[in-house]
Parts: sequence; structure tokens; C-alpha cells
Amino acid sequence: MHLVTPPLSGERFQVIYRINGSYDEAMAKAQDACIEQTVEFPADLLPAGDIPNHIIGRIEGVNKSFNDFNDITISYPVEDAGGDLVQLLNVIFGNTSIKPGIRVEKLILPTAILSKFQGPRFGRNGLRSLLKAPARPMLCSAIKPMGLTSEQFADQAFQFASGGIDIIKDDHGLADQPFSPFRERVARCAEAVQRANAKSGSHSIYMPSLGSRADQIIEKAYYAKSVGAGGFLVPPGLVGFDIMRVLADDNSLALPIMMHPSMIGSFVTCPTTGFSHYTLFGQLTRLAGADATIYPNWGGRFAFSREECISIAAGSQEDLGHIKPIFPTPGGGMTIDRIPEMLDVYGKDLIFLMGGGLHRIKPTLVESSAYFRNLVENM
Amino acid sequence: MHLVTPPLSGERFQVIYRINGSYDEAMAKAQDACIEQTVEFPADLLPAGDIPNHIIGRIEGVNKSFNDFNDITISYPVEDAGGDLVQLLNVIFGNTSIKPGIRVEKLILPTAILSKFQGPRFGRNGLRSLLKAPARPMLCSAIKPMGLTSEQFADQAFQFASGGIDIIKDDHGLADQPFSPFRERVARCAEAVQRANAKSGSHSIYMPSLGSRADQIIEKAYYAKSVGAGGFLVPPGLVGFDIMRVLADDNSLALPIMMHPSMIGSFVTCPTTGFSHYTLFGQLTRLAGADATIYPNWGGRFAFSREECISIAAGSQEDLGHIKPIFPTPGGGMTIDRIPEMLDVYGKDLIFLMGGGLHRIKPTLVESSAYFRNLVENM
Repeated sequence: MHLVTPPLSGERFQVIYRINGSYDEAMAKAQDACIEQTVEFPADLLPAGDIPNHIIGRIEGVNKSFNDFNDITISYPVEDAGGDLVQLLNVIFGNTSIKPGIRVEKLILPTAILSKFQGPRFGRNGLRSLLKAPARPMLCSAIKPMGLTSEQFADQAFQFASGGIDIIKDDHGLADQPFSPFRERVARCAEAVQRANAKSGSHSIYMPSLGSRADQIIEKAYYAKSVGAGGFLVPPGLVGFDIMRVLADDNSLALPIMMHPSMIGSFVTCPTTGFSHYTLFGQLTRLAGADATIYPNWGGRFAFSREECISIAAGSQEDLGHIKPIFPTPGGGMTIDRIPEMLDVYGKDLIFLMGGGLHRIKPTLVESSAYFRNLVENM
Repeated sequence: MHLVTPPLSGERFQVIYRINGSYDEAMAKAQDACIEQTVEFPADLLPAGDIPNHIIGRIEGVNKSFNDFNDITISYPVEDAGGDLVQLLNVIFGNTSIKPGIRVEKLILPTAILSKFQGPRFGRNGLRSLLKAPARPMLCSAIKPMGLTSEQFADQAFQFASGGIDIIKDDHGLADQPFSPFRERVARCAEAVQRANAKSGSHSIYMPSLGSRADQIIEKAYYAKSVGAGGFLVPPGLVGFDIMRVLADDNSLALPIMMHPSMIGSFVTCPTTGFSHYTLFGQLTRLAGADATIYPNWGGRFAFSREECISIAAGSQEDLGHIKPIFPTPGGGMTIDRIPEMLDVYGKDLIFLMGGGLHRIKPTLVESSAYFRNLVENM
């Protein structure tokens, strides 16, 4: 009789998996996940006692969701997750990610798990205070295209800020390329935005992308802050979710973070693997400390549906204990004419992200930005 | 007329994308990727000159692959990739990951890209030298199940090493749980393997898992080395590919690395998104510095096909300039009776990974391990 030492608390967290196949097939896959996500060991060889009784996953409920899918809830002891995000992800969807026909639909996390995380430092209220935008939707744009010089990017950043864009971010493709090295670009763009703020009385911030070498992310973040950057764009698909948490938790940085979905698409584009939009862009992004979650709005250049986008907005605000709600930031081919429809669906707690589309409206970026800001403020 | 400063070298790397749909549909998706993966900007608004002529992707060829798929080769200037793995991945499959019906099939990387990477420190020859196994297939097993104490894991590790298992790794689910804290487990298991080596004259190594908080991975690696660990198990799906490269490149660590596929499955289980098995488990894993690539063999608990496994073995050794070939390490429900078939398919340049199956063969783990070793040596 093997008893786990120290004794387990008895507290468990739950994962709802959406599983393809008949009821019997789905139950077989769920029973398999109970083992695969924990002990990864033949059930008949487990030592009797706590391991088969408590350490392995336990099926808590089954709901027919639609057609060939069943939603099966599995619980795991909080101790399996070992107190950090990486191990939590490992238990949620480690080896099971390699099996077809199963995806993570929703996480149900007790205080014993949530208390391990600080979550977003700013969240919706904090970002609104920082940007002096107590109630209106906020605006974001990106300096682009790749291939311009840092001077040209700084000019764009100045115009965006002068026209009233709240958050001016690096296009996610900008890194440390020879035509615009990271340090040069960040210093120039941060300075340009501060100059525009001083001139116009606005409170815009510049967010460089930290899609960077693993051993340079923290150092680049500190550099960016030192030259006046006002936040960070972080692509967890490229650099991992937990480094975003490290940046968010760092009291010496203490700047807002936007999650960028580069390379993360494979986790959501296939309905029979990965994560639901709700969990990936909502729950996990909040646990990992982002204050805003960027995703492609329906009807743009990408293929997320209206319902998937609405589920992201739900995941960005639904109850997650003390973990703050964050801003849905739909983009990906947005244009001015979409604003009324988006406000109708999302309400005012969102950040409009318009990139290329902003270059078409008026002769200059400052005029286009001002037009965009005015339109959003008066709707 | 916008010229890029400094001027581009003219060297380009290629990505072969497998794209779903008719020829016309596939070409439209490819043209879209040429923009999306680089400038992410309306083509008609790009300043004339280098950006549309050279910075954006360029379609280099189309091959009908099978049924509804076309393989389309797109080239990008090496400068877009900015000299590091994170930005290279960003250009290969950043935003395009969010679009359905397109996956990365193969990378064709010129010296200008490959020279930025050291790749595996050991590779096949280096690992064979280290483990004093000049020609035979090597053996790997894992301490498990989660829920045992560090003392029990150390006893398993001692038995595995005494029986001739070359690499004894943490089960990937073992992290920093209360029932076996990381430092305690690593110290005990490393000591146990060294004790077994001293007694039996073998050269086994213990590899703890670094599926850990982003801000603790390097520190845990140094700790592990200081107490005698002989390598690292790294799950890039959980912690990012580039931190594996950082560990591999670190001359003060200088220990071999095995790639574990936890949470990476969503990139390969769906045939219309993500990466091919060849690229993910072969090319990217080598670029990121692993000396062995772990994946589920066909016919075990997972669903990779025989052909997919063979393509991983091909990706583990095919030409990648100075980047060394590495060991395919098929596991995931392997049993003794599979050995002849696996040797037939893979040849002797492989690591057999048997976990749970090893607990069934003989009354003790040391006997089972010795039986397994003997069987493999005499085939």
C-alpha cells in the first residue's frame, strides 16, 4: 500500500476535454488521458494506494456536446501540477497533445491553483488608468512594414501617437534585423512616442516585440524600459507562455503586456486537437500575465468565426478568481467600417487593432489616426 | 523607390508548405503567406523597391503532392530571419499558423542561416563516445510513476543503470512536486546512477527533466550538473525551442539533451496545420541543439504512422550542413517484441526508449534491464 508523502490535500483541478468519437470511444480516450497525463504507466502495475486512487486523473462527468463530440471532465490533484505554469500545462495537455481527436475545451481551477499566479499586472482597469481612458474602447496600431529603417518606424510611431492611437506596437515580424536593429528601433520609437505625448498631451505607449532569443528576452525588456518603452508585445507561441509570466511578474519592469499569437495557430485551427479559443486566448493568456490578448477578428484575413471570437472575449473576462480580466484585441485585417459591428458584439471593453488598414484612410498617418480615434470616441 | 539599408545579401532560405485545396486555391494561400510571413501589409501600399522585390516571400515552385494538396516552395531573404531561431520560426510559420489548410513540410536552409546555429553539441558520434557505445543501439528508460518518493526513484535509477540502460531520464511528468522535489530527486538519482556505474563499470547517465519555470531552467540545469546529472530532458512544447538551444550552446554545461514532445503534438497531429514530422522532430529539433529526438513509435499507445516515424528518422540525419545528425528515440508503449522490427526499419543508429514495458519482463528492474540490453546487443 503506497501512500504519497507528504499527504495530498485532496484538492483537485478540472479540465474539460472535447473528445471526438462515440460515447464509448470518447470514454476510452478519457480513461487513457487519466493515465497519460499523470503517471504514464500501465494501470495494472501501479502500486495500490494513493497513486491509482488519487494521483491519476479521474473522470468527473460526461456531456454530449454535438455530433461526434463528447465533453468529458477529468480532475487531477493540484499537487500533480507542481505549482507552476509549465507543469500545469504538462498535466493539462502534455502527451495527450500527441493523440488525435482530443482538445482542451475549458479549465476549472480552484484557489489552490489560482493562488500560485499573479496574473495580469494591469488588467482592464489598470490599463485604462495607465492610458487615461476610463471608459472608451482603446486603439492600437503597429509600425510596419518590415524593411523600413528605424527612423521611418519612429516617424510612423510619432504620427500614430500624435493622432491619438493609445498603443503603438512593433509589427510582430520586427525583431533584430539589420535594416532595423532592436536597440536602435526601440530607442527611436520610444522617444518619438514620448515626444508626441509631450506635444499633444496624450498618453500613448510604445510596445516593442520581445520575440527574441530566449537568453536575451529579459535583457531586452530592461533595455526597452530604460529608453522609455511603455509595454511589451510577447509571442508565447515562439518563446513559451511562462516567460510572459516572468515578464508580467517582474516588479522592476511593471509594464503592460500584449499577447501576440504568432505560431500559436496550430493549437486552435484544427477542431480535433489543441485548445479551444476560450482557453488559449482567454484563460491561459490571463494566467500567463498578459493584459491584452491579440487575435484575428472574424471576417478579416484569417478564419476565426464570429462565435470563436465571442468565446475569446468571454475567456478574457469570465471568473478566474483574483486573476484580472483583460482586453480582447481583435485585429488581422480590420477596417474602419467594421467598428459599429465590433462595438455591438464586444461592447466598449476592447482594444481595436488596425494595422495596414490605417494607411488607407487619409493622406497622412496622423490624420488617419485622428479620424479613427474620433470615430471610436463618438460611437 | 525604397532601398533597404544595409543592402540585402541576395541569399534566401526556402520553406516548402503543403497547402490544402485546388492549384488556384493553394497558390492564393501561398501568395498570401509571402506577405503574411514578412511585411504583413497591403501589397498595393508597399513602397516600390526592395520591399516588394526582395523582402517579401517569393514563390519558387509548385508540386502537386497528392489528392487535395500542393507543395509550394516559398523563399525569404535570410535577413528577414534576423539571425536567431525565434525570428526564423516567426518567418517560417508565424501568422500563417493561424490560417487553416497550410503546414510546413520541409525547410531548405543555406549556409547563411545554418552558420548562425551550433546545433547538437554531441550528435550521434558524440553521444556514442560519451556512453562508450560505438556501434550498438542504445537504451533509455524513465523513472516513474509520479507519486513515488525520490528515494524510490533513485532505487529505480540504480537498477536501470546496473542492468545496462544507457540513459535514465525523468518521466516527463516529474517536475517539482511535493512528493519528489526537483533538487532532492536529481541529487539522489544522479548519485544512484554514479554508484551503479562505479560498481558495474558501466557509463550510464541520468537526465532530469527541465520542464520548469522559465526563470529557473538555467539555474536548475547548473544545479543538476553540479550534483552529477549527465544530461537534460527538455520539452520545447512547454518551454520553447530556443531555451533548448541556449542549454545546448552553454559551454559550462556541455551535456547532451533529449527533446521530449510534451504539448507539441498539436503541431503534428492535424495534417492541415503545423509542421511535418520530418521538420518538427528532425530539422527544428536539430537546429535547437538536441542530441536525441523522442517521439511515439507506430503501433504503441499513440497514432504516428510507420511512414511518419520513418520520416522523423530521415529528418534526424539528412543533410543540414554542419548541424550533426541525432538519434531517433522512439518510445510511447514500446515492448521487447518490437525490437527486431524496429532494428529492421531504423538500423542501429537509434535509442530504444522503453518505460512501463520494462516493468513486466522479469521480477526486478535490474534483471529486466539486463535482459533488454542483452537482447539488443545480440541482434
